[in-house]
Amino acid sequence: MYSASMNVLALDTSTPLASVAIISSETILAEAAFTCNRSLSARLVPEIDHLLELAGLSINDIDLFAASIGPGSFTGVRCGVATVQGLVLATGKPCAGFSSLAMLAMNFTLTTHPICALLDARKSEVYAGLYDCSAATPTPLLADCVMPIEQFLRLISAATDRPVVFAGEGAQRYRETILALRGELALMAPFPHNIGRAAHGAMLALQLFHNGKAIEPAQLLPDYIRASEAELARRART
Amino acid sequence: MYSASMNVLALDTSTPLASVAIISSETILAEAAFTCNRSLSARLVPEIDHLLELAGLSINDIDLFAASIGPGSFTGVRCGVATVQGLVLATGKPCAGFSSLAMLAMNFTLTTHPICALLDARKSEVYAGLYDCSAATPTPLLADCVMPIEQFLRLISAATDRPVVFAGEGAQRYRETILALRGELALMAPFPHNIGRAAHGAMLALQLFHNGKAIEPAQLLPDYIRASEAELARRART
Repeated sequence: MYSASMNVLALDTSTPLASVAIISSETILAEAAFTCNRSLSARLVPEIDHLLELAGLSINDIDLFAASIGPGSFTGVRCGVATVQGLVLATGKPCAGFSSLAMLAMNFTLTTHPICALLDARKSEVYAGLYDCSAATPTPLLADCVMPIEQFLRLISAATDRPVVFAGEGAQRYRETILALRGELALMAPFPHNIGRAAHGAMLALQLFHNGKAIEPAQLLPDYIRASEAELARRART
Repeated sequence: MYSASMNVLALDTSTPLASVAIISSETILAEAAFTCNRSLSARLVPEIDHLLELAGLSINDIDLFAASIGPGSFTGVRCGVATVQGLVLATGKPCAGFSSLAMLAMNFTLTTHPICALLDARKSEVYAGLYDCSAATPTPLLADCVMPIEQFLRLISAATDRPVVFAGEGAQRYRETILALRGELALMAPFPHNIGRAAHGAMLALQLFHNGKAIEPAQLLPDYIRASEAELARRART
């Protein structure tokens, strides 16, 4: 059904810097990252269209669609997931979801240090994951979670006494705290490694597909890790 | 003269996958990579324009321009350098040049393995560099050069008995040879790490600027490493 040359469109909208990538098997045809505070709905689809044009493909040439399912911005993740659901519904192609934190950790593939991927979760918390990235795809050392950075640093200290690489917008935001509490055991990512890049998401999606884990659009659901304000309010009422 | 918040536009056109990035100090505002076999001249400037729009900047907001000076495609590098020279001449801003191989190696920043960056140089040769990427910016272990892959693998073996990461289109092209000759001491980059990303070039340019090494546009010159066909023909005639 699918040839060796499989075209994948992947997107990540979990942070204010969205990313979209189009790959053909193991070659990146086009990838873009762009700031989209409050303008994601207006920018995402035109940007997908533009990248398809750069890649010389039409939407019907895509064999697999993928979106980051979070954690991250609730609105951002929902927008990305909904866009992919729409594309999948219209084209009848399969889809896959991947973790925004795993994708971020993949900036450090083949690095022997454990990688701590951090996104700003507001409310003085971070979305956090600790990954072993020494192989081609990341293995979680601590499950993705949401908590204050100090608490996650304690979990890291309990898990490893090795130097850890801290990456992502959350690492930039809490840089001073991380350096104060972890000292020389903290390696801060240089800034080009702090953004998620959708080509890594495409690679995760391709592996899910090859492992028979592509899903229907109705199964592609955000994983916010924490309950939304609306959810908390509903629980409080009942 | 320059504020703490400095806007940098960097581009790399040394391979068929061009990359452009716009950063503001240590934040990526927009980055794109796109295939441009034989269409670079038609695509590069519109893409710069599009990225500026995504970043919410105009060309006059850019404080520093940067281009990869090679090695790589002669036509590609010349086109990228000429574009930046034009932008610099028109805006009066400074510029900087960086190695395409160093930029590629930076996909593996903070990795303890030595990184071998390889681009396809045609004529059965590779453009090759070996870098220590364990710090934020790469340090050359072997100078950028051009030679058959087998010959460069011998240089690597003489330089280190550690596992080495092989990255870039040249690593994809000569994958079998590398694995055959180096065995378990060869770690092949997963495909999302095989493309150069201009945000790394922007980081190199920013460092050159802060070290007083920004240059005039006339000094921004390609470094092809090997003589062009035209150059060889001229030498043969004299």
